[in-house]
Amino acid sequence: MKDSIRVPAQVLADRLNGALLDAGASAGSAASAVRALMHASRIGVDSHGARLVEHYCTVLRSGRLAGDPQLCVERRAAAAAVVDGGDGLGHHAAYRAMDVAVALAREAGVGAVGVVRSSHFGAAGAYAIEAARAGMVGFVTTNADSIVAPHGGATAFHGTNPLAFAAPSGGARPWLLDMATSSIPFNRVSLFRSLGLTLPEDVAADEGGVPTSDPQAVGMLLPVGGSDFGFKGAALAGVATIFSAILQGAVADHEMIRMVGGDDMKTPRGMGHFVLAIDPDRFGGQAVFEAGMQTYLAALRAAPARAGETVMAPGDREWRVEAERARGGIPLDPDTAAFLGLDGARTGVTVARKAGQ
Amino acid sequence: MKDSIRVPAQVLADRLNGALLDAGASAGSAASAVRALMHASRIGVDSHGARLVEHYCTVLRSGRLAGDPQLCVERRAAAAAVVDGGDGLGHHAAYRAMDVAVALAREAGVGAVGVVRSSHFGAAGAYAIEAARAGMVGFVTTNADSIVAPHGGATAFHGTNPLAFAAPSGGARPWLLDMATSSIPFNRVSLFRSLGLTLPEDVAADEGGVPTSDPQAVGMLLPVGGSDFGFKGAALAGVATIFSAILQGAVADHEMIRMVGGDDMKTPRGMGHFVLAIDPDRFGGQAVFEAGMQTYLAALRAAPARAGETVMAPGDREWRVEAERARGGIPLDPDTAAFLGLDGARTGVTVARKAGQ
Repeated sequence: MKDSIRVPAQVLADRLNGALLDAGASAGSAASAVRALMHASRIGVDSHGARLVEHYCTVLRSGRLAGDPQLCVERRAAAAAVVDGGDGLGHHAAYRAMDVAVALAREAGVGAVGVVRSSHFGAAGAYAIEAARAGMVGFVTTNADSIVAPHGGATAFHGTNPLAFAAPSGGARPWLLDMATSSIPFNRVSLFRSLGLTLPEDVAADEGGVPTSDPQAVGMLLPVGGSDFGFKGAALAGVATIFSAILQGAVADHEMIRMVGGDDMKTPRGMGHFVLAIDPDRFGGQAVFEAGMQTYLAALRAAPARAGETVMAPGDREWRVEAERARGGIPLDPDTAAFLGLDGARTGVTVARKAGQ
Repeated sequence: MKDSIRVPAQVLADRLNGALLDAGASAGSAASAVRALMHASRIGVDSHGARLVEHYCTVLRSGRLAGDPQLCVERRAAAAAVVDGGDGLGHHAAYRAMDVAVALAREAGVGAVGVVRSSHFGAAGAYAIEAARAGMVGFVTTNADSIVAPHGGATAFHGTNPLAFAAPSGGARPWLLDMATSSIPFNRVSLFRSLGLTLPEDVAADEGGVPTSDPQAVGMLLPVGGSDFGFKGAALAGVATIFSAILQGAVADHEMIRMVGGDDMKTPRGMGHFVLAIDPDRFGGQAVFEAGMQTYLAALRAAPARAGETVMAPGDREWRVEAERARGGIPLDPDTAAFLGLDGARTGVTVARKAGQ
């Protein structure tokens, strides 16, 4: 395995920002993208962290993304708004959308915000967690280009279509769920290819839709639930499509220009997202909610585990990684480190063997 | 296998209504329960259909449920309300909650309604589909008493906690997803016990939390996603708990009186639900939404299938069953048929071998 390096968070954030500015991003949209990438990189979601910056720079330079998108927020009703992302970095539009949703929810009890003319926004959890930080329950979803077979299908149809939920926990860190509706991200396939490992069963299929555990043979992913219950994962992928694309009049997964690997790097992809915030003060009340979360999470974490297993709440693994990376720095894959001009010789950061993830 | 009988829908609905009235339900709350049970029985969700009536009659008679619940709707903000179910049949409170959510969404773009002091409400999809019939996107969830292990856990913690979504499809029947966040309902275990069949792997565990495919040994269910990805199903069960119980200040799964099999049949269970409606007219527009759904569903249904498989949209199987049952009647298990006084000799309905489900 190649060496990877570890970089202090502030160093990484500065390099990401510099790279995006160099590629033509406005200060505001670059700052939003850095914030979202650092959310993922800090908590160990490396598939949606710093490694994406090279792609974003590519599509800023190629003209797919507007460097200086003018966000347009249109309030449609007491609890509804739509953000036009101006075909810029999706992170910029998504943070604004959650800001608006929280403000609407403060007034109306709940706020639902659609986003149109957006693009890849990194980790959906980056925005859901902002609702939790504002004391609210958050839900964020997006669709993406086709890579996941429908249940029983022999072709890619849905994207990995994440569902992210967050809520204040009554403790230092929120409850956070950010899950793809496929079993694994495509990134895992790439990693297993490079490591020569065998995939779990029922997570991927070959170009003909036949399940395979050989990462070299993978042509598409399978929905979470496996061969017996993948209809549930596929239907949840549809929830992401319906909320993010169809409700907004944005582009559905199967009609979307490929994020990477396609010919067209110039045309905007017309991606939509959906963001929801709910204010506990209009339901059981903030204090009741946070006390209830504390009791619930304490009971969950105290549940007896099977031999060799640990029972965790969603987010627990991420906060553990965040603490470890705050001390030890954020590991960067060699390609991203090279792209950012970050390597041991030049920056003096720690060089360590990268653990498989 | 025992014989089962098939009953015309109207005959069944009348018998259900009569049984509930006999057990002390008010006309209004009985009508709501019948409507929800018939939704499930018509579309083949027999676990949540007519067979539940005997249980509901038992808990109406035992005093757990109020026969004549006074629903109280409290509007909390432009887009938020709470329905107090008065400890009656949960169906009555849940239908009212969705009516209120749709009305709020008509004004505010989205409507979120919590339900407190409720009880088992049957199939969550019964209420989600009402949003779709009103031209809206619906989401409904509830928690339930503990029967599903956390991921890696050796004890039951969450309920089967359903997530139900529905949307107008631009066609005759809505898009409808109504899924437990466990792989299977406990009802499936009971069925497999009586049939002497082996369960799929990774859907259930014994009393010690060790996965088993022997239905006789099952002590708890496992979250959807199986041994590798059950953390996703467990987290989605948490979404149901957080929205339905903790946000409303209602009773969490692990603290809830057992629906069946416990000692206490007198104390109300304090169950909560959560209901959301979203008006497409405040986002991309109703016409754009329905046209988008038509295009999306046509593409999904046209996706090439693996050998021996069929690609279906959520709800397709249910509408097929509905059409078949509209012609051939609704099959009833022998115990429920006897409870309702419906048997071939007395009613002249068709007697048929019941297919495994």
